[in-house]
Amino acid sequence: MCDHCGCNTKLKPLKKVVLDLNINIKAKNDYFAEKNRETFANSNLFAINLISSPGTGKTTLLETTLKALKKKFKFAVIEGDLQTDNDKKRIEKQKVPVRQINTDSACHLDAQMIQNELTHFDLKALDLLFIENVGNLVCPASFDLGENTKVALLSVTEGDDKPEKYPILFHEASVALITKIDLAKHTNFSIKKCRAHLKRINPKIEIIEISATKDKGMNKWYKWLESKIQVR
Amino acid sequence: MCDHCGCNTKLKPLKKVVLDLNINIKAKNDYFAEKNRETFANSNLFAINLISSPGTGKTTLLETTLKALKKKFKFAVIEGDLQTDNDKKRIEKQKVPVRQINTDSACHLDAQMIQNELTHFDLKALDLLFIENVGNLVCPASFDLGENTKVALLSVTEGDDKPEKYPILFHEASVALITKIDLAKHTNFSIKKCRAHLKRINPKIEIIEISATKDKGMNKWYKWLESKIQVR
Repeated sequence: MCDHCGCNTKLKPLKKVVLDLNINIKAKNDYFAEKNRETFANSNLFAINLISSPGTGKTTLLETTLKALKKKFKFAVIEGDLQTDNDKKRIEKQKVPVRQINTDSACHLDAQMIQNELTHFDLKALDLLFIENVGNLVCPASFDLGENTKVALLSVTEGDDKPEKYPILFHEASVALITKIDLAKHTNFSIKKCRAHLKRINPKIEIIEISATKDKGMNKWYKWLESKIQVR
Repeated sequence: MCDHCGCNTKLKPLKKVVLDLNINIKAKNDYFAEKNRETFANSNLFAINLISSPGTGKTTLLETTLKALKKKFKFAVIEGDLQTDNDKKRIEKQKVPVRQINTDSACHLDAQMIQNELTHFDLKALDLLFIENVGNLVCPASFDLGENTKVALLSVTEGDDKPEKYPILFHEASVALITKIDLAKHTNFSIKKCRAHLKRINPKIEIIEISATKDKGMNKWYKWLESKIQVR
């Protein structure tokens, strides 16, 4: 098993100690995830881990959501990227507290990175924390950040077969947002096939079709968010 | 550093031995990559490692390329996916030798996986081997498979900022294919900005704009491929 992706590498361990260290490092992440979960609960804060491929529309979703709901609820955002603070700059325009994590070349956020950033927010004043993970449909799904739930995004331009080919995230997530729905007519994406793949992998997953730039389906997403904020 | 992604995790090593094992495991991949490189050279075979996000159009590129050039050259394909053999089935329709690697939950192909598959091909009868890596813009870029070159794909629907945000692959690749160029008019993708980001990361990178489904720019790609087959 990979030391911090948690994926099953075909490389055989060179020494038995590799396995023990894997367990330790995975356990270390879970330790920090548990600490984060306690922090969120003590602050009465709902935390969402947003995961998708690069370019599926995570930051655009956040911009649109913050614009629509920021007067009603108190949000904060953690942005994860290999490099650049472009996404942080986009979120700052919404006048919402935001922190950027640059992982350099690491393929996902881990729970300790999140813990380090939490000290920069007034957590008790917040209703909801969005954590935008590194754009990657594989590795981030295996790393618990202590979040309340994972939200998966999949754009119609990526193809309706992606849940079947990359099932780990869709198995874990409570919501799948099918994004860029306005572009579906220019592709061979089948909503019906995609929904069937998603429901086979995770019968409980909620599926919402959206276009953040064309304001399609966003009310359904906002209602889901509000329901989570209200029952926390 | 991550044991097999080679990425710089922020997790501190629990024991000094972690670092030594990282070096060993990375060295193990490089050993198999070197063996693969020798095999390709001895068989006078050009090998291309195709890397992109999920759904950028790697398999569609292969289908179109094989259809256009398979009478002229002898191709083989290795398909990498977490799960399913959907891509293998698509390539089989082109009557070209193809093998599927399912990594289960591993985020990239490694050199030993490739070595295992090479025994299934008549290598000396081939001109070019395509290796379609797992859909992931981060981890596959750090793992040498012994290929002659890496080709990166980036679709216009992913956004023109992706080379800047995920520079590792684009720094390594000799060609960047900007795919789904027919959809550019429906997005805010700037070819000019994307080209500038790519050239800043890798001044030598060749950039080809294509639409495999609408047959745009494909001749330039075919000419590049033919030039590589001819000088191998």
